[in-house]
Amino acid sequence: MNAQKPRHYVLTVSCPDDVGLVAAVSNLIASWDGWLTEVANHADRVTGRFYMRNEVAADSLPFGIEGFRERFVPLAEKHRMRFEVHDSAVPRRVMVLVSRQEHCLADLLHRWRTGELPFDLRGVISNHDQLRSFVEWHGVPYHHVPVSPESKAEAFEAMGRLLDDEAVDLVVLARYMQILPPELCARYEGRIVNIHHSFLPSFAGGRPYEQAYARGVKLIGATSHFVTADLDQGPIIEQDVVRVSHADTASDMVRLGRDVEKAVLARAVRYVLEDRVIVHENKTVVLA
Amino acid sequence: MNAQKPRHYVLTVSCPDDVGLVAAVSNLIASWDGWLTEVANHADRVTGRFYMRNEVAADSLPFGIEGFRERFVPLAEKHRMRFEVHDSAVPRRVMVLVSRQEHCLADLLHRWRTGELPFDLRGVISNHDQLRSFVEWHGVPYHHVPVSPESKAEAFEAMGRLLDDEAVDLVVLARYMQILPPELCARYEGRIVNIHHSFLPSFAGGRPYEQAYARGVKLIGATSHFVTADLDQGPIIEQDVVRVSHADTASDMVRLGRDVEKAVLARAVRYVLEDRVIVHENKTVVLA
Amino acid sequence: MNAQKPRHYVLTVSCPDDVGLVAAVSNLIASWDGWLTEVANHADRVTGRFYMRNEVAADSLPFGIEGFRERFVPLAEKHRMRFEVHDSAVPRRVMVLVSRQEHCLADLLHRWRTGELPFDLRGVISNHDQLRSFVEWHGVPYHHVPVSPESKAEAFEAMGRLLDDEAVDLVVLARYMQILPPELCARYEGRIVNIHHSFLPSFAGGRPYEQAYARGVKLIGATSHFVTADLDQGPIIEQDVVRVSHADTASDMVRLGRDVEKAVLARAVRYVLEDRVIVHENKTVVLA
Amino acid sequence: MNAQKPRHYVLTVSCPDDVGLVAAVSNLIASWDGWLTEVANHADRVTGRFYMRNEVAADSLPFGIEGFRERFVPLAEKHRMRFEVHDSAVPRRVMVLVSRQEHCLADLLHRWRTGELPFDLRGVISNHDQLRSFVEWHGVPYHHVPVSPESKAEAFEAMGRLLDDEAVDLVVLARYMQILPPELCARYEGRIVNIHHSFLPSFAGGRPYEQAYARGVKLIGATSHFVTADLDQGPIIEQDVVRVSHADTASDMVRLGRDVEKAVLARAVRYVLEDRVIVHENKTVVLA
Repeated sequence: MNAQKPRHYVLTVSCPDDVGLVAAVSNLIASWDGWLTEVANHADRVTGRFYMRNEVAADSLPFGIEGFRERFVPLAEKHRMRFEVHDSAVPRRVMVLVSRQEHCLADLLHRWRTGELPFDLRGVISNHDQLRSFVEWHGVPYHHVPVSPESKAEAFEAMGRLLDDEAVDLVVLARYMQILPPELCARYEGRIVNIHHSFLPSFAGGRPYEQAYARGVKLIGATSHFVTADLDQGPIIEQDVVRVSHADTASDMVRLGRDVEKAVLARAVRYVLEDRVIVHENKTVVLA
Repeated sequence: MNAQKPRHYVLTVSCPDDVGLVAAVSNLIASWDGWLTEVANHADRVTGRFYMRNEVAADSLPFGIEGFRERFVPLAEKHRMRFEVHDSAVPRRVMVLVSRQEHCLADLLHRWRTGELPFDLRGVISNHDQLRSFVEWHGVPYHHVPVSPESKAEAFEAMGRLLDDEAVDLVVLARYMQILPPELCARYEGRIVNIHHSFLPSFAGGRPYEQAYARGVKLIGATSHFVTADLDQGPIIEQDVVRVSHADTASDMVRLGRDVEKAVLARAVRYVLEDRVIVHENKTVVLA
Repeated sequence: MNAQKPRHYVLTVSCPDDVGLVAAVSNLIASWDGWLTEVANHADRVTGRFYMRNEVAADSLPFGIEGFRERFVPLAEKHRMRFEVHDSAVPRRVMVLVSRQEHCLADLLHRWRTGELPFDLRGVISNHDQLRSFVEWHGVPYHHVPVSPESKAEAFEAMGRLLDDEAVDLVVLARYMQILPPELCARYEGRIVNIHHSFLPSFAGGRPYEQAYARGVKLIGATSHFVTADLDQGPIIEQDVVRVSHADTASDMVRLGRDVEKAVLARAVRYVLEDRVIVHENKTVVLA
Repeated sequence: MNAQKPRHYVLTVSCPDDVGLVAAVSNLIASWDGWLTEVANHADRVTGRFYMRNEVAADSLPFGIEGFRERFVPLAEKHRMRFEVHDSAVPRRVMVLVSRQEHCLADLLHRWRTGELPFDLRGVISNHDQLRSFVEWHGVPYHHVPVSPESKAEAFEAMGRLLDDEAVDLVVLARYMQILPPELCARYEGRIVNIHHSFLPSFAGGRPYEQAYARGVKLIGATSHFVTADLDQGPIIEQDVVRVSHADTASDMVRLGRDVEKAVLARAVRYVLEDRVIVHENKTVVLA
């Protein structure tokens, strides 16, 4: 998905491990004269599961992505593979959700606008109206969907319709402070990425920087994970930390934490956009 | 405590914050013609507490450490200061406790033997006998104090006597896997430093690497803290982390974690030996 | 300069080391009933030089900043101190210089707009016109000053006039790709901060990422430094690195490096705005 | 080479990139019923070169390592591959060279003794005699080979004989402060790993910490590289850094740097022992 890279298809595979899987997959691709430009795999000795990610140069193949998928099905069925194929020339349709804090949003908008993160930004949804002007300057639709205790059900219904109408591939919670309802989490399973402002599993739930300050930790962190119905318990994609000291108040930690949140979320979104993340049970394999 | 530094007294102070504290302390020292070679302080706006650490060149003073202490008492009483004065030429008396894992012990012994960490190593206590030869090669007494469910009370009594007999200033738990009894924790409050093999408060208790593996975190860590009667809950002195991936098994994490444990414990011990750590309630101020 | 902090004066001092300097300074402030809210100092054993930074609560003093300065002069003269006093309520007047790359600019604008970095942004100067719309959306004047080999002298004269007219305290080169003339460097000595896209002294000069790629380093970095007439040789304020691998091309390094550049420049600017940086010869003391 | 891993053969390949290489290699292995337990590869778009590392479970093959090599030759010739096959059950024969500083040696000895780094330690060579007792306690032969300006030629000849007699696979310079003669570098090309105490290419040559102190850098580092006849110019295997400040003297940097040197050298040696490092021209591909 890098500008320098030629158009390619990304094939990701997850299946029970077995002898000859790399050969079987690479062989099939070679039989089409497909050029593998990047290959990564992982055989998990604990779970006995096999994961593979392949980049195939699009113009080395005599057919398109649908042809790829069809021709891959027999092998997939033989080895009980879950697989996906994506075209690097078709950017993912993304919706960003945000509340009042704008640092993650501003960071994503900058990476999107300059082409560093290539996705198709369908819009921004917020439960507040205050970031409208900044978002609209970018030519991006801004949807104000207020959420109050009474309006919650309708609000999330409206939000769900927006996501469906835009046929969104990926929802990014860029410090969106509302808890999504379980049915939305289920409907978009594996397609909602959140940034939590702590080094999970420490300080799950609310006000993690205050918790960190109270405990007197010497590093604070951020965690990007897929959203599931269990709050802050979904599969972790990426984490990082920054050093703090006794001299940092909770509000200093908020400031220092912002930079970690931005960096961790941007890396996680990149991994997802490049099809580097495969989920198995409650963990991720990141074939970076 | 650095070889290049001239002999000095380290004065540490903790008291309610007030106008003129830096002036009062530095003035008193100046009135003795004392040369302040290093000063650090912290005024905590949240707790309203003041902390200070001063290094005074020993030969700039016309009296010794007892004279220093006596002359400091009136000021301390006036401002309700808790204070300590230590002589850099009098190394702390240290006992190291260890079980079977030797990486932290080997690291500390190396830093001690080469003079990097200047302390007076009184001995090593272990609930196993297997590290005896390595310790004794260093000319250090090795005390095998086995701990079984039945013998626990006697064992810790024997251990307490060893600590008392050696007039130990500091006890370092270098991956000592037994839980110290509350009375020993209380008697040596603020003088027992532990290394816990997780980034606390994540994965407190047993088998933290297995917990980390199960949760799928992307960084693992280690935490050095003072030991209190609450397991893994004492004031944190130092922490650090290292990156792991889906490809790392729990035993890979054990291996990677060892290097973090060694580094974190060595830094924490250094801070304590140099009187850089002041405890207030359940947190530390580290005037590094 | 943090929102939570009350208004304060920052006093920075640099002088030959001597007995009683901390006492002399803190005493003088205490004699005015001044409340020291933060103190840091450094006595350099190698150069025999003493550095001090003090924050004094403004409303604890019976006079203003001019009164502070006047009353400090006699002590300064006695000890041959270079000193400065700044009022946290008077934000620095800043001009940002930029070329085509906008990541550092966007990062600074975001931190400025949200109040994280409190300065008085007087404008942006660029040798290209393409970032005008983004800058002007922020309500910030944008000055296009093209620089060609023939127009160089006039261009830098125009730029110098802009800086002078706006009475700029600080010039930030946010990936400005032109070399400033020596007279401008001299006139704004200690007031021009640059970000260089390598871990200096490695890869000084042009195209550092290409140089890094060619050498096969495993970490790349960025350096923020004061600009002097010697290209990339000025006193270093802050540096950081990020890991790269054989799989990263020079253009991947450019992308990864951008995040380091942003972070390093933002930290350096914060240190300068908060008067934490004291220059001595070709090095900095950063009293953070 | 991890205790938990079953015995395996590691195949490393380097050749011009082409369509079907992954398929060709994995196919051949699959045709023998070989179980690929780990695969990594890299297709370099800049150089057009392809690199691959495969772990094949030894007991999945009907023949031994010689059979593997023989059967691989035709494919290697077809694609102009340079390849190696190593048996994880045959530890590499290693000689460690050291001068007076023992931290890297002590660290390697500890990792070797506890089985963390599985190699066959044939001995330690030093131009000083002072580390003999520590080395011999480990049951490892210690060779004192003094090097003076006059005796240099003979000394290196003796050293070369020791290496040859022990049929050494890998020479580790663990802060060995003599420059090896070009003929020895050439004879053991790709088999001598050095640790340099700076973040190369900064501060090549002598006294790098003094150079770093003089330049006022904010991070110091260490670099492990293969030794070539060009001093400090060989292919870099691994690097890392640690933060320093104005308060750190050159001797503080020496102390802080030791921990980075140990960590970087240990990682580099691990990569080499596990056949993860492939050299091409003056750079390394590290398939970790």
